[in-house]
Amino acid sequence: MLLPRRLPLLAGLLRSASSAASSLPPNPKNVSCREGFLWSSCYFHSTRHQTSREGAPMAKELLDPFALIKDEVCEISNRLRSMVVAEVPELTLAAGYFFRAGAEGKRTCPTVLLLMASSVSMDMADPIVGSKNEIRERYMRLAEITELIHVTSLIHDDVLDDVNTRRGMDSLNCVMGKKLAVLAGDFLLSKAFSIAAVSLDNTEVILLLATAVNNLVTGEFMQMRITPTQRCSMDYYLQKSYYKTAALISNSCKAVAVLAGQTAEVATLAYQYGKHLGIAYQLIDDILDFTGTSASLGKGSLSDIHQGIVTAPILFAMEEYPQLRVIVEQGFNDPSNVDAALEYLARSQGIERTRLLAAEHAKLAADAIDALPESKDGSVLISRQALKDLTEKLIKRTK
Amino acid sequence: MLLPRRLPLLAGLLRSASSAASSLPPNPKNVSCREGFLWSSCYFHSTRHQTSREGAPMAKELLDPFALIKDEVCEISNRLRSMVVAEVPELTLAAGYFFRAGAEGKRTCPTVLLLMASSVSMDMADPIVGSKNEIRERYMRLAEITELIHVTSLIHDDVLDDVNTRRGMDSLNCVMGKKLAVLAGDFLLSKAFSIAAVSLDNTEVILLLATAVNNLVTGEFMQMRITPTQRCSMDYYLQKSYYKTAALISNSCKAVAVLAGQTAEVATLAYQYGKHLGIAYQLIDDILDFTGTSASLGKGSLSDIHQGIVTAPILFAMEEYPQLRVIVEQGFNDPSNVDAALEYLARSQGIERTRLLAAEHAKLAADAIDALPESKDGSVLISRQALKDLTEKLIKRTK
Repeated sequence: MLLPRRLPLLAGLLRSASSAASSLPPNPKNVSCREGFLWSSCYFHSTRHQTSREGAPMAKELLDPFALIKDEVCEISNRLRSMVVAEVPELTLAAGYFFRAGAEGKRTCPTVLLLMASSVSMDMADPIVGSKNEIRERYMRLAEITELIHVTSLIHDDVLDDVNTRRGMDSLNCVMGKKLAVLAGDFLLSKAFSIAAVSLDNTEVILLLATAVNNLVTGEFMQMRITPTQRCSMDYYLQKSYYKTAALISNSCKAVAVLAGQTAEVATLAYQYGKHLGIAYQLIDDILDFTGTSASLGKGSLSDIHQGIVTAPILFAMEEYPQLRVIVEQGFNDPSNVDAALEYLARSQGIERTRLLAAEHAKLAADAIDALPESKDGSVLISRQALKDLTEKLIKRTK
Repeated sequence: MLLPRRLPLLAGLLRSASSAASSLPPNPKNVSCREGFLWSSCYFHSTRHQTSREGAPMAKELLDPFALIKDEVCEISNRLRSMVVAEVPELTLAAGYFFRAGAEGKRTCPTVLLLMASSVSMDMADPIVGSKNEIRERYMRLAEITELIHVTSLIHDDVLDDVNTRRGMDSLNCVMGKKLAVLAGDFLLSKAFSIAAVSLDNTEVILLLATAVNNLVTGEFMQMRITPTQRCSMDYYLQKSYYKTAALISNSCKAVAVLAGQTAEVATLAYQYGKHLGIAYQLIDDILDFTGTSASLGKGSLSDIHQGIVTAPILFAMEEYPQLRVIVEQGFNDPSNVDAALEYLARSQGIERTRLLAAEHAKLAADAIDALPESKDGSVLISRQALKDLTEKLIKRTK
């Protein structure tokens, strides 16, 4: 069993792995939700579900993946801050903008990747106690590289989409200008591949990371240069969503399995988990853009539709009300088109059907974890449960 | 000896390698010069130098590196066109903009790299005649990757510097907009690292390529955000020039030696060649910006000084006329400052001293080739001579 060096909480739970889901205390901390691109973690706390604690049926407490892996993720944040140093101070400032303490977002990518590492490491030999766990260190390097790529895409996308806020603060292009933001992104990307070459020494993993970058670019392009016909296509929307939101985490999850020396089957399951988690997240995100925290239509920021971005709820509504297609094809520069689309959406099952689709993807993600080779290792079981619980919490989130 | 598969001209010369420098006919073709970022090849033709052909002293004909390696470079161009295909047609158009026939520039990078490959391959086993020369193929992949990175930097730099023309045509940002140009660059960079991972399978080489990208970004940043004090510093100028113009070719030359399985000493010499060739090119380029083809001051495009970019000739002039520093620190938004700087430059030895510095770097590049382990192999000797001749032609170019 591969026991992460810095997981006291996880280590302390090893003796009661089979009852882990009910033995963990709820984490009352409710962190703010400011991350837009992948997903936020604000919904990963205090959700209750069916289980029994004192004989009587009651809601099960879902594992808090962020608490489980907190120490390692903190170390990753510290390392990221120290590695995005350029020869020229202003470039360091720009490149490090989203890695400052308090500006790092929810760090969901590294959390998922490290849990995935523990989930697929069941065949690894025990590390020598107290010695440097080199394998775990490589997973952490991979998580850092993934964060670098993630932030690169945030920075460049904000330039391309003229976005002024990110993670609840001014976007980098807003603070330091578009040109510096483009350069900072290029700098971070070169850092990512430098670290991959030096620390991972695995060209299959480097290819997965380069593929993810390629997908991110393709997804952004698909959004930026969409035609009226493409705007009405659910297939196009799902493909774009995969590229923009799920490709990085899915390829990185697969990379974890590759680094673990796992079989192609396990690598595919890891990939499937990341893919379906990412798509489910995006679908819920699309709903929340309409509803906000209140679950009432029109209470969200409506930022997608105001930017002309058509998402799943509207596409489902269009299936019920084909006359909505004319409005979607026209776009939403005219505010009356926004009002009309919201009216059709309110009458339709668009929100509900989107939620069902998200639940399907969340289930597919959990199924991928369940299909991993059997293990009785406590650390493995807890990590897998945390990854599955993440899918449940995700579809229930309200912000 | 490693005989490149597609080098009939080189193959035909093997029997007379020792007299190769005088046996090659001059290439009368004089191609146009449109490439700004690395260097152009228009000066690599018909230059004459001291040697004897029929007993009497006469000018030696310098080898034409581009003719020597032409077939392989054509194959690289064809492959580049086929590999920059994206899932969405418009992204393919943007990414392939500088790879279209007639738009590829002089392809100096691949030419240098393939000659370097032949120069450092003296210890390799003969390939089986007619069989696939896998080692040579890897050099070609490396040359393609270097071109992808080179074009990425062209495209992003043009966005950042608001450049409207490139290679004698509209820049990509001018034709398809800045946003698409940023995305096309990201796409090409991800392609470069994908191909590196798949085809080279060597993380040391991938690190060299990532380092080159990092240097390109740093150089562009140093130019974009220069302070008045930095603008007056020769050290700053040379460091920036290395990053912007020499870092890619020097790291790629080193990567060739690494792929060849060469010693660290040979890899360093290959790196030194690329570094000094790049810096010498930049220095001559800086002169030509003032003189153009006429060698008379003020006949060049003066594009550097009009953009506020201070180069070696002005920096040398400033050593003779310290009062020029005030003007340089003020910048060149005021046309009278341009006129005054040109006047000081005309009175100074700025142009001559820049030319001398370029000659020093060209000699250092040639010295690196001379310091390579001895070889009697005809192909190796011709390739090395071509690389050395390149340095001579470079400092004599007038356009």
